[in-house]
Amino acid sequence: MSKSLEKEKKMSQVTDIGSTHEFDLDNRDPTLKNEHVRVWFEDSFAEPDGTHSIDGVWTCSYKTFECSKKCCYIVLSILCGGPCALLWGLMFAMQSCYHIWCIGPYMKSFFIDLGCCAAYWKALVQCYCDPLYESVGKIFGNIRFNHRYEVV
Amino acid sequence: MSKSLEKEKKMSQVTDIGSTHEFDLDNRDPTLKNEHVRVWFEDSFAEPDGTHSIDGVWTCSYKTFECSKKCCYIVLSILCGGPCALLWGLMFAMQSCYHIWCIGPYMKSFFIDLGCCAAYWKALVQCYCDPLYESVGKIFGNIRFNHRYEVV
Amino acid sequence: MSKSLEKEKKMSQVTDIGSTHEFDLDNRDPTLKNEHVRVWFEDSFAEPDGTHSIDGVWTCSYKTFECSKKCCYIVLSILCGGPCALLWGLMFAMQSCYHIWCIGPYMKSFFIDLGCCAAYWKALVQCYCDPLYESVGKIFGNIRFNHRYEVV
Amino acid sequence: MSKSLEKEKKMSQVTDIGSTHEFDLDNRDPTLKNEHVRVWFEDSFAEPDGTHSIDGVWTCSYKTFECSKKCCYIVLSILCGGPCALLWGLMFAMQSCYHIWCIGPYMKSFFIDLGCCAAYWKALVQCYCDPLYESVGKIFGNIRFNHRYEVV
Amino acid sequence: MSKSLEKEKKMSQVTDIGSTHEFDLDNRDPTLKNEHVRVWFEDSFAEPDGTHSIDGVWTCSYKTFECSKKCCYIVLSILCGGPCALLWGLMFAMQSCYHIWCIGPYMKSFFIDLGCCAAYWKALVQCYCDPLYESVGKIFGNIRFNHRYEVV
Amino acid sequence: MSKSLEKEKKMSQVTDIGSTHEFDLDNRDPTLKNEHVRVWFEDSFAEPDGTHSIDGVWTCSYKTFECSKKCCYIVLSILCGGPCALLWGLMFAMQSCYHIWCIGPYMKSFFIDLGCCAAYWKALVQCYCDPLYESVGKIFGNIRFNHRYEVV
Amino acid sequence: MSKSLEKEKKMSQVTDIGSTHEFDLDNRDPTLKNEHVRVWFEDSFAEPDGTHSIDGVWTCSYKTFECSKKCCYIVLSILCGGPCALLWGLMFAMQSCYHIWCIGPYMKSFFIDLGCCAAYWKALVQCYCDPLYESVGKIFGNIRFNHRYEVV
Amino acid sequence: MSKSLEKEKKMSQVTDIGSTHEFDLDNRDPTLKNEHVRVWFEDSFAEPDGTHSIDGVWTCSYKTFECSKKCCYIVLSILCGGPCALLWGLMFAMQSCYHIWCIGPYMKSFFIDLGCCAAYWKALVQCYCDPLYESVGKIFGNIRFNHRYEVV
Amino acid sequence: MSKSLEKEKKMSQVTDIGSTHEFDLDNRDPTLKNEHVRVWFEDSFAEPDGTHSIDGVWTCSYKTFECSKKCCYIVLSILCGGPCALLWGLMFAMQSCYHIWCIGPYMKSFFIDLGCCAAYWKALVQCYCDPLYESVGKIFGNIRFNHRYEVV
Amino acid sequence: MSKSLEKEKKMSQVTDIGSTHEFDLDNRDPTLKNEHVRVWFEDSFAEPDGTHSIDGVWTCSYKTFECSKKCCYIVLSILCGGPCALLWGLMFAMQSCYHIWCIGPYMKSFFIDLGCCAAYWKALVQCYCDPLYESVGKIFGNIRFNHRYEVV
Amino acid sequence: MSKSLEKEKKMSQVTDIGSTHEFDLDNRDPTLKNEHVRVWFEDSFAEPDGTHSIDGVWTCSYKTFECSKKCCYIVLSILCGGPCALLWGLMFAMQSCYHIWCIGPYMKSFFIDLGCCAAYWKALVQCYCDPLYESVGKIFGNIRFNHRYEVV
Repeated sequence: MSKSLEKEKKMSQVTDIGSTHEFDLDNRDPTLKNEHVRVWFEDSFAEPDGTHSIDGVWTCSYKTFECSKKCCYIVLSILCGGPCALLWGLMFAMQSCYHIWCIGPYMKSFFIDLGCCAAYWKALVQCYCDPLYESVGKIFGNIRFNHRYEVV
Repeated sequence: MSKSLEKEKKMSQVTDIGSTHEFDLDNRDPTLKNEHVRVWFEDSFAEPDGTHSIDGVWTCSYKTFECSKKCCYIVLSILCGGPCALLWGLMFAMQSCYHIWCIGPYMKSFFIDLGCCAAYWKALVQCYCDPLYESVGKIFGNIRFNHRYEVV
Repeated sequence: MSKSLEKEKKMSQVTDIGSTHEFDLDNRDPTLKNEHVRVWFEDSFAEPDGTHSIDGVWTCSYKTFECSKKCCYIVLSILCGGPCALLWGLMFAMQSCYHIWCIGPYMKSFFIDLGCCAAYWKALVQCYCDPLYESVGKIFGNIRFNHRYEVV
Repeated sequence: MSKSLEKEKKMSQVTDIGSTHEFDLDNRDPTLKNEHVRVWFEDSFAEPDGTHSIDGVWTCSYKTFECSKKCCYIVLSILCGGPCALLWGLMFAMQSCYHIWCIGPYMKSFFIDLGCCAAYWKALVQCYCDPLYESVGKIFGNIRFNHRYEVV
Repeated sequence: MSKSLEKEKKMSQVTDIGSTHEFDLDNRDPTLKNEHVRVWFEDSFAEPDGTHSIDGVWTCSYKTFECSKKCCYIVLSILCGGPCALLWGLMFAMQSCYHIWCIGPYMKSFFIDLGCCAAYWKALVQCYCDPLYESVGKIFGNIRFNHRYEVV
Repeated sequence: MSKSLEKEKKMSQVTDIGSTHEFDLDNRDPTLKNEHVRVWFEDSFAEPDGTHSIDGVWTCSYKTFECSKKCCYIVLSILCGGPCALLWGLMFAMQSCYHIWCIGPYMKSFFIDLGCCAAYWKALVQCYCDPLYESVGKIFGNIRFNHRYEVV
Repeated sequence: MSKSLEKEKKMSQVTDIGSTHEFDLDNRDPTLKNEHVRVWFEDSFAEPDGTHSIDGVWTCSYKTFECSKKCCYIVLSILCGGPCALLWGLMFAMQSCYHIWCIGPYMKSFFIDLGCCAAYWKALVQCYCDPLYESVGKIFGNIRFNHRYEVV
Repeated sequence: MSKSLEKEKKMSQVTDIGSTHEFDLDNRDPTLKNEHVRVWFEDSFAEPDGTHSIDGVWTCSYKTFECSKKCCYIVLSILCGGPCALLWGLMFAMQSCYHIWCIGPYMKSFFIDLGCCAAYWKALVQCYCDPLYESVGKIFGNIRFNHRYEVV
Repeated sequence: MSKSLEKEKKMSQVTDIGSTHEFDLDNRDPTLKNEHVRVWFEDSFAEPDGTHSIDGVWTCSYKTFECSKKCCYIVLSILCGGPCALLWGLMFAMQSCYHIWCIGPYMKSFFIDLGCCAAYWKALVQCYCDPLYESVGKIFGNIRFNHRYEVV
Repeated sequence: MSKSLEKEKKMSQVTDIGSTHEFDLDNRDPTLKNEHVRVWFEDSFAEPDGTHSIDGVWTCSYKTFECSKKCCYIVLSILCGGPCALLWGLMFAMQSCYHIWCIGPYMKSFFIDLGCCAAYWKALVQCYCDPLYESVGKIFGNIRFNHRYEVV
Repeated sequence: MSKSLEKEKKMSQVTDIGSTHEFDLDNRDPTLKNEHVRVWFEDSFAEPDGTHSIDGVWTCSYKTFECSKKCCYIVLSILCGGPCALLWGLMFAMQSCYHIWCIGPYMKSFFIDLGCCAAYWKALVQCYCDPLYESVGKIFGNIRFNHRYEVV
């Protein structure tokens, strides 16, 4: 937790909009959130012993794959990176507002009523069900277990 | 609990309506009630190694997200903060009144009757069910377990 | 229990209707009966780090909430406090009377009859069910358990 | 039990109808039979911290409740105490008579017949059911349990 | 048992019909057979603290209850005591006769036939059911239990 | 058993029909066969403390009950004792004859055939059912139980 | 068994048909085969204390019962003893012949075929059922049992 | 087994058809195969004490039974002994031939195919069922057992 | 296994077709494959004590059985021995060819595909079923076992 | 993990598109991803002892198999290696983009709402289900186990 | 595994098509893959003691079987050995190509999506199912086990 707090402190300087700052451009996934999305060539393609293609074909495939993946992603990120960031910024703002000013107080009010219902319901159950199940429990009320033990 | 009591004492000064007081404007969630609502940029967006977009796109997305989220929330809080506080204040007052003057005495009255029913019901169950289940329990009334033990 | 007895003694002086007495006006919930109804501002509203509204909005919301809740409750208690107390006083008197003079003797009479039925029913069950379940219990009447134990 | 016997002795003097006697007017529930019917003001009404009504309203409510409850009960007890006592006295006399002269001998006669039926039924069950369930019990007649034990 | 035998001896003198004898008029329930029928005033009526009726009402109720119960029972016992005793005497005589001269020999005859049926049925069950259930028991015939034990 | 043999010897003298003999007229139930049929006055009627009838009524009831029971039984036994004994004597003779000359040899013949069927059926069951249930038993064939033990 | 062999030797002399021999006329049930058929007077009739009939009635009943039973059985045995013995002799001879010359070889032939079917069926079951149930057994293949032990 | 081998050796001399040999005419059931078919008089007929028929009747019955059984069997064995032996000799020869030249090779061929199917089916089951049941086994994957132990 | 290898070596000399060799004509069932087909006279026919036929009949039956079985089998083996051997030789050759050139490679190809399906299916099951059953396992997640131990 | 990190470092140099580099052409399956696809001649074809084909046939089959498999694979890899690499490169780029800019933020938003629902649902369940199941648990609330232990 | 690696090295020399090499013509099933296909004469045909055919018939059968099996297989292997090897070579090449260039990358892509679904589904299950089953687990939340231990 201490680590996350330090991070927040550092980030709190950053969030002063208007100031320009250098944030970590190299490690873009500090929480390993999208680790499972990472793809290398040897994760997708592999030739076992005995079924090797010609060297040229294999080298060519490798370069084709890496190049096409990289270029395509850069183009797509330029196109949709900005709009997505804007959209999700507004979404999270509205969600925060809804949770802070509506859901929070409603939950408090709901738990007050629920505390009352719980006492009511618990008393009823203890009144009507407990004697029944205690009676059923008499099935196990007199087990006689004759244990004859023989060591070979 | 001692902590919450101290807090109440401190707050009891505050609740003198009419007096102006400085309450904690920095830490606005002392009970970590809405901890799960907090959103940072790296909680939403992350690029694993090998699929990095251009640095400009990434920096731009970051600024867009933070800015739009902050501005939008401030606008929304100005619009709905006051009315919500007023509404929920009245709601909780009415709920308290209903619980204190109606539900409380009703529950007391209900528990008096229930105590009577419980004695009635328990006697019936013990009269009619107990002999049955004690009889069923005779199934386990004479278990003979011949245990032949061999250490290898 | 000793505590509750002392309380009763103290209260027994109070219950001399006609005499004026000072009862505890500060602690109005000595048995913590309505603890779950208590509501503070920070129980309903909380802003996590990173989504803080402007200070003025937050302070204003706080005052609005506390004021409206307090005022509304005082008005409501003045209106319905007296009638409710009167109504519930009469209700509990009638309920006490009904329990003391009707339910009590009826339960005694009922338990006399029930004791007779219980003996009748128990004899029937022991006559007809016990041999059946003792017979079923013969399933577990000759368990042979060959235990071969090997320590690695 | 010894206590109850002493009580009976003491009461046996009292039950000489016609003689006047002083019985315990202060403790009217020596067996705590109707303990659950007792109601105090703080069992019904309670205000948690932060939602206190004006002191006058609270004091007034208290007096109203206690007074109305007490007066109402005294009126009702005067009205129905005597008739109820008479009615239940006759009821218990008839119930005692019925139990002593009818139910008692009938139960004796019933148990004589039942003892005969029980012997008949038990012999039938042992004849037809016992071999079946002993046969079913052969399922557990040769359990081989190879226990390989490894301490880490 | 020794006690009951002594009692019988003492009673055998009594049962000489025609002779007058003094039997125990004080303790009329030596076997506590009808203990559950006994009713006192405090078993039926009880006033908890805080809901006491006026002393006169309570004393009056007590006397009314005891008196009405006692008088009513004496009247009823005079009316129906004799006829009931006569009726049940004849009933028990006929029941004894039926049991001694009919049921007894019939049960003997029935058990002779039943012993034969039991041998027949047991042989059938052992022939056809035992192999089946021994076969089912092979489910538990080779349990291998690898127990890895780790003490923390 | 030795006791029963002695009894038989003694009785074997008695069973010489034609000779007159003195058999035990006092103890007419040596095997306690009809113990449960015995009825005394205090087994049927009992008055708990507090509900005593007048002494005369109680004494009168006692005499009425004993007298009517005794007289009625003697009359009935004179009427039906002889015919019953004759009837049951013929019944038991015919039953003995049937069991000795028919049922006995039939059971022997039946057990010869049954021994053959049993071998046939057992072989079938072992052939077809054993492999199935041994296969089902493989469910319990590799239980791995990791036991983590912590003493508090 | 040794006892039964000796008996056979002794009897083997007897079974020389044509020679006259003295066999045990007193003990006619050496294997206690029909022990449960034996009936005495006190097994059928019994009078508990307190319900004794007149001595003459009881003595008369005893003589009637014994006499009628004995005479009736002798008449019946004379009538049906011989024919029954003849009939059952022929029956057992035919049954022996059938078992020795037909059932015996048939069972041998049947077991030869059954041994073949058993191998066929066992292989099928082990092929198709074993993998299924071993798979089901994986349910119990990794039980983790955290045992927290606390001695009070 | 050694015993059975010796027997075979001895019998192998006998089976030289054409030579005449002395085989055991006294003990005609060396393997106790038809032990359950043996019937003596006392296995079928028995008279308990108290119900003895006249001595002449009993002796006569004994002789009738033994004689009729013996004669009848000898006649039947002469009639059907030879044909039965011939018939079963041919039957067993044909059965042996069928088993040796047809069933034997067929079973070998069948087991070759079955070995293949077993591998195929086992792989399918391990592929599709094992993950499912391992998943179900997670139900028992984290049992927490709080054991509170109290010695009385 | 070593034994079977030696046997193979010895047999490998034999399988040189064209060379003449002496193989074991005495022991024609070295693997006890058809042990259950062997039939002797005393396995089929047996006379218990007391039901012996005349000596001549028994000796005659024995000779008839052995002779007919032996002759019949020799005739049948001459007729069908050769054709059967030829037929099964061709059958096994074709079966071997089919298994070696078709089934073998097909199984290899099938297992390659199956390995892929297994990974696919296992991932699906672990994704969707594991959380469900881990959740169900919470039923056993907090067992509290209060053990009260009493040594008698 | 350290190993995979080193690999990534080494690969990060390689992924500079435009630079030519030598990657491992010999070991083309470093993660043994397609180990199960590898096929040798002896994995598909095998002749057991006793059914050997002529040496020429076997050698010829071996060469035919290896040659056809190798040539065919090289032709196919030349044809489809490049297009496949290109296609999958584009696919993975689009998938990465979709996961990073859409799925990531959506999951964050979803978990915020879910945290709220979880608190709501958990409170309801604890209120209404807990008392019921605690009541059911009373079945096991009073087990009496009489253990009689006998060492043989 | 080391053994299989050595084998691969040795085989890697062999797989140079065009070079001639000597591979093991004697042991044609090094992995015992087709062990279950091997058939000897004594695996198919066996004559138990007592049912031996004439020596000539048995010798003749043996030679016929071995010869026909060997010749038939050689003819079949010459006919179908080559085509089968060619066919399966092409098959395995195509299968390898499909697995390496299509299935491999598809599985990688599928697992990326699945990782996302798993997180989504797991959160839902933990939110809605965990409270329910924890509630059900309260059944086992208070087991009281009274153990009465008696050593005989």
